[in-house]
Amino acid sequence: MTATSTEVIAAARGFASDNYAGAHPEVVAAVAAANAGHVTAYGEDPYTARLQEVVAGHFGAGATAFPVFNGTGANVLSLQSLLPRWGAVVCAETAHINVDENGAPERVGGIKLLTVPTPDGKLTPELIDREAWGWGDEHRAQPLAVSITQTTELGTCYTPEEVRAIADHVHARGMRLHLDGARLSNAAAHLGVPLRAFTTDAGVDVVSLGGTKNGLLLGEAVVWLGDDDSGLKYLRKMNMQLASKMRFLSAQLIALYEGDLWLRSAAHANAMAQRLRAGVETIGGVRLTQQTQANGVFAILPDGAADRVRESFRFYDWDPATGEVRWMCSWDTTEEDIDGLVAAVEAAVA
Amino acid sequence: MTATSTEVIAAARGFASDNYAGAHPEVVAAVAAANAGHVTAYGEDPYTARLQEVVAGHFGAGATAFPVFNGTGANVLSLQSLLPRWGAVVCAETAHINVDENGAPERVGGIKLLTVPTPDGKLTPELIDREAWGWGDEHRAQPLAVSITQTTELGTCYTPEEVRAIADHVHARGMRLHLDGARLSNAAAHLGVPLRAFTTDAGVDVVSLGGTKNGLLLGEAVVWLGDDDSGLKYLRKMNMQLASKMRFLSAQLIALYEGDLWLRSAAHANAMAQRLRAGVETIGGVRLTQQTQANGVFAILPDGAADRVRESFRFYDWDPATGEVRWMCSWDTTEEDIDGLVAAVEAAVA
Amino acid sequence: MTATSTEVIAAARGFASDNYAGAHPEVVAAVAAANAGHVTAYGEDPYTARLQEVVAGHFGAGATAFPVFNGTGANVLSLQSLLPRWGAVVCAETAHINVDENGAPERVGGIKLLTVPTPDGKLTPELIDREAWGWGDEHRAQPLAVSITQTTELGTCYTPEEVRAIADHVHARGMRLHLDGARLSNAAAHLGVPLRAFTTDAGVDVVSLGGTKNGLLLGEAVVWLGDDDSGLKYLRKMNMQLASKMRFLSAQLIALYEGDLWLRSAAHANAMAQRLRAGVETIGGVRLTQQTQANGVFAILPDGAADRVRESFRFYDWDPATGEVRWMCSWDTTEEDIDGLVAAVEAAVA
Amino acid sequence: MTATSTEVIAAARGFASDNYAGAHPEVVAAVAAANAGHVTAYGEDPYTARLQEVVAGHFGAGATAFPVFNGTGANVLSLQSLLPRWGAVVCAETAHINVDENGAPERVGGIKLLTVPTPDGKLTPELIDREAWGWGDEHRAQPLAVSITQTTELGTCYTPEEVRAIADHVHARGMRLHLDGARLSNAAAHLGVPLRAFTTDAGVDVVSLGGTKNGLLLGEAVVWLGDDDSGLKYLRKMNMQLASKMRFLSAQLIALYEGDLWLRSAAHANAMAQRLRAGVETIGGVRLTQQTQANGVFAILPDGAADRVRESFRFYDWDPATGEVRWMCSWDTTEEDIDGLVAAVEAAVA
Repeated sequence: MTATSTEVIAAARGFASDNYAGAHPEVVAAVAAANAGHVTAYGEDPYTARLQEVVAGHFGAGATAFPVFNGTGANVLSLQSLLPRWGAVVCAETAHINVDENGAPERVGGIKLLTVPTPDGKLTPELIDREAWGWGDEHRAQPLAVSITQTTELGTCYTPEEVRAIADHVHARGMRLHLDGARLSNAAAHLGVPLRAFTTDAGVDVVSLGGTKNGLLLGEAVVWLGDDDSGLKYLRKMNMQLASKMRFLSAQLIALYEGDLWLRSAAHANAMAQRLRAGVETIGGVRLTQQTQANGVFAILPDGAADRVRESFRFYDWDPATGEVRWMCSWDTTEEDIDGLVAAVEAAVA
Repeated sequence: MTATSTEVIAAARGFASDNYAGAHPEVVAAVAAANAGHVTAYGEDPYTARLQEVVAGHFGAGATAFPVFNGTGANVLSLQSLLPRWGAVVCAETAHINVDENGAPERVGGIKLLTVPTPDGKLTPELIDREAWGWGDEHRAQPLAVSITQTTELGTCYTPEEVRAIADHVHARGMRLHLDGARLSNAAAHLGVPLRAFTTDAGVDVVSLGGTKNGLLLGEAVVWLGDDDSGLKYLRKMNMQLASKMRFLSAQLIALYEGDLWLRSAAHANAMAQRLRAGVETIGGVRLTQQTQANGVFAILPDGAADRVRESFRFYDWDPATGEVRWMCSWDTTEEDIDGLVAAVEAAVA
Repeated sequence: MTATSTEVIAAARGFASDNYAGAHPEVVAAVAAANAGHVTAYGEDPYTARLQEVVAGHFGAGATAFPVFNGTGANVLSLQSLLPRWGAVVCAETAHINVDENGAPERVGGIKLLTVPTPDGKLTPELIDREAWGWGDEHRAQPLAVSITQTTELGTCYTPEEVRAIADHVHARGMRLHLDGARLSNAAAHLGVPLRAFTTDAGVDVVSLGGTKNGLLLGEAVVWLGDDDSGLKYLRKMNMQLASKMRFLSAQLIALYEGDLWLRSAAHANAMAQRLRAGVETIGGVRLTQQTQANGVFAILPDGAADRVRESFRFYDWDPATGEVRWMCSWDTTEEDIDGLVAAVEAAVA
Repeated sequence: MTATSTEVIAAARGFASDNYAGAHPEVVAAVAAANAGHVTAYGEDPYTARLQEVVAGHFGAGATAFPVFNGTGANVLSLQSLLPRWGAVVCAETAHINVDENGAPERVGGIKLLTVPTPDGKLTPELIDREAWGWGDEHRAQPLAVSITQTTELGTCYTPEEVRAIADHVHARGMRLHLDGARLSNAAAHLGVPLRAFTTDAGVDVVSLGGTKNGLLLGEAVVWLGDDDSGLKYLRKMNMQLASKMRFLSAQLIALYEGDLWLRSAAHANAMAQRLRAGVETIGGVRLTQQTQANGVFAILPDGAADRVRESFRFYDWDPATGEVRWMCSWDTTEEDIDGLVAAVEAAVA
């Protein structure tokens, strides 16, 4: 990249997505540090071995991590590992696997999704039962797994007890439980519990462990919590998620999860969302539509106000029909960013 | 990664794979430099825009680059972009897509491979015709594309004229041509021609542009050379190859291809392979089995010698039946590494 | 089948499914008549040629018929023929392709379904628009086709004008229209119009032409109404729907559609449904839940009544939550059958 | 079919394919006999129950039959039932699954085929070992099943001892064995053994049981010989091979396999092939290229002779490169047909 071309890059932070942020400096440093000499490719390297220890520290001795490139990859691998060829997955209508992955679970995974409308992105045993039926009927894609997202796409959070209730319900019916944890660090920060409290200890079978949204360059992992890893190493390769120089994925994940970077970054993003909520909830005409339990704030503004705010800050419409918008905070959002957004909302509404 | 854990990492360079090497320092520096502020995710960023210019400089104004995670991803996307659902691909029996991708082209791509034995990994019009037939017969997967690898898995290299002859042959039959360029820089270095000489100018329709093997952390690109990009942006997402923080893939590819790093690194690796060939070809009992036109040397050693060499250097058996071994050089191989390997071979054979 | 084993077969007609009926005697006779000498396999036979004329007589000169084995096969082929690899299909939540095909459209077809709740199984332009959006956004499976069922799974019927409005709406957005016509003869009988009135003339692009439910042994056809048949012959083979002795499928379809057997049988089944409706709608406590526009009657009975009726006649629960049941009439249902069912309902409710 | 249209049908028998023949009259009679009253759809009918007994009589008490529409369907279901998602199948290069199914095993089944050249269409433990390796290497599609064809596409036949040797070899390596039995009756007739001699008793795990080529209208079955049927009922539905009016498939299979029709028809076809071989092998210039162990004869004729024979009889080129032709006999081939072909060959060569 020449000096000229870098000059065109606006460094302004917005609220569109936690994917708009860069990588945490500690992550970049870890990549540079891992760049020494030759190591065996495809995961037979000391970084990936160390990652297993780090992951076991969080999820228990039986946990096995399979680093992959992105969240869609982590989700499709996780679900395939839980299902026979004729399996289906019960999930919320708003789940990322249903709305944001261009059908990868269906097309690549060969998986049918059985979707349930929810008020807040969260499934419950009762909601699951709306689609968890028909076992033995060959005309029906067999509901053999449930997928929940923690925190949800709507910024809400399952308690450990809620996950446990789902896991028990699911297991009692011969199904298995996947947790899409693209933002599971934000949940742990919100709940004040370790990662295993709402995963291993709550009965989850496989986790998509988030990385990119919490400060990696790129990288996630499938964390398998069961006894037998169901062929995940083959699934990873055939699904085009096997990194040759895997040390560079593992080193990033180690940087994030070995110490407390995962928690510091997530707690910061959550705090920024709380600051934002506190700032806008008293502004007349602004209606908050979801609880703020992670790093996203959802709101409906008066007609036209959103577009006026957008002159200063980028963010997405969430539901064009209702005018609901989504503001996402990330590990690098500053108090000044928040205060600037609050001021812009105030001005736009006035 | 703690100091303790890094200590276990042996920095010794071997000859097992160009994937055992790390990333070039200029590439790591480019990643760090790109890590500033917020940019739009999923490719709407200035780095990816700049990459288009860089790629157009190499492949012509009509070229479009789609950064992806790995070579299998690049290959499957490329082939899908060329084929209807009922298409098949003619390739060499030794092609990476046939032997090293756990069936991803078939399983994820839905593509039938029609394989042809070759003496040196290279297809010719005559070899292609062994499988390029049966159009209109619905029982036969329709051969509508050909895939060649440059340089091949056997370290051999197509001349621009050879590629042109294949392209003309293929196009005259209504087929299209893919070039798996995981090591295309090594070919350009060997041939002394620009990248477009054996791609755009020779009639290739789509290229898997290599990155990782030539010094990236990770990252490749599909480079589409035709008019209409055949839905590649959708194929990339649904095949789980879309990076959210794409700037970090694009910045690496820019670092490699904007200046001459691609050529310097490839030429160096090639030169190391020549030095190795020169060193071992006069050793009695060592039989070289392929021409050395890139960064790999293939040889058969006397019984037991390979295992004795392996006490000092890592490398792979290529064909256990014949005792053929493969020595791969990379951007970071040194003259001392080569001389050490030559000495070890000499000692092992004596 | 020995005499002994045939004795165990109960010949009692019920109301569970039009698939419980056998084949019309004229169909069986046509199969026997086609069983003379050798003809070319895989559709190059005079019966399949004649079928093209018969189908053109119904759907217009541009129509091409591809006989297949079953309705799921016809639907998956039809949808694949309309879609690129990244396409999605908007359909009613109650559509057969969504609820009764074990995910074949997703798993075999590689197709994402975007489902819409409907009160009566029928889509409208407004309902379609709930999912027909997001073109150009690679994260969203691209909605490029709509599938409607005629008559619907709820026994309701689109008018030609309603189909035309949908087709115009769909085409204006660059999408295409599939009609699942497993029971399209019942629609024509109800509407009193030719088959082409709500297909070719109303803008439909491809039709799943029903056979089995209207009196064939087995057999359906994809009827392509466009200019270019989009590779359907290859899709049929690769999707395992190509009959080697195709004359036996074609002869059945000719028997059904060459004369008026299709209409006689469908009109009879519809009339039986009307007789049933008339018989039960005056029974106190019986609530009819859908219009009766084809061969199915949907009703909610008082608690426990359905099980008492089931002691004499087989039929299915439609919605266990509400107690709704479905009674299907077929080409061989008799007035006595209907009167018997009405009497049984009367007795069960009393 | 009107009288007019039937007149165009040439009843002449040729030697192109056993699929050009019609159905045996006993089969058509069985279909007509099964066409009485209502029976439960999708296989819960007395015919399908009786078929289980018939199949158990041939293959042993543990055998379960899943009627399907065609051979490609039977093969894909069989292979999926034996394999995890990452599995591959070792088969002969000439296998029907490799050359005649438009990639259905790969595209629909998600299966990689590892093909081996053979002189006569038959695999051996040694030939299998050319591709049965690499377990545990995630880059290699895992060879977990072997598929053999009985009789082969080249008209040759495995002895029970040969199948047993393959089964033992395969099982010792953790793989499983599929037998594509599109013409298994011809093998039993040739060998003079019951069907179970080279299937159940020889260690085969799953069989594609042929029907159409031996005199059905259409219909085959997957016969599962193991303890647990591996979800075949779900695989059948999702792969679009579930007949709603299944009695009509089952009744045909009963007609074929309950008595000795399978053996009578196959033995007759085999005898016609022997008569043909005896007739042409003494004709100067005719070279027979394969043993005649079933109903096909393979030969190379002098230049131009094949085309002269084709003026009277239809048959296929087998290998255009060598001029090899294939003559197939079927259940309805007559001695006069054979003598006519022999005379035509004699005249063409003279």
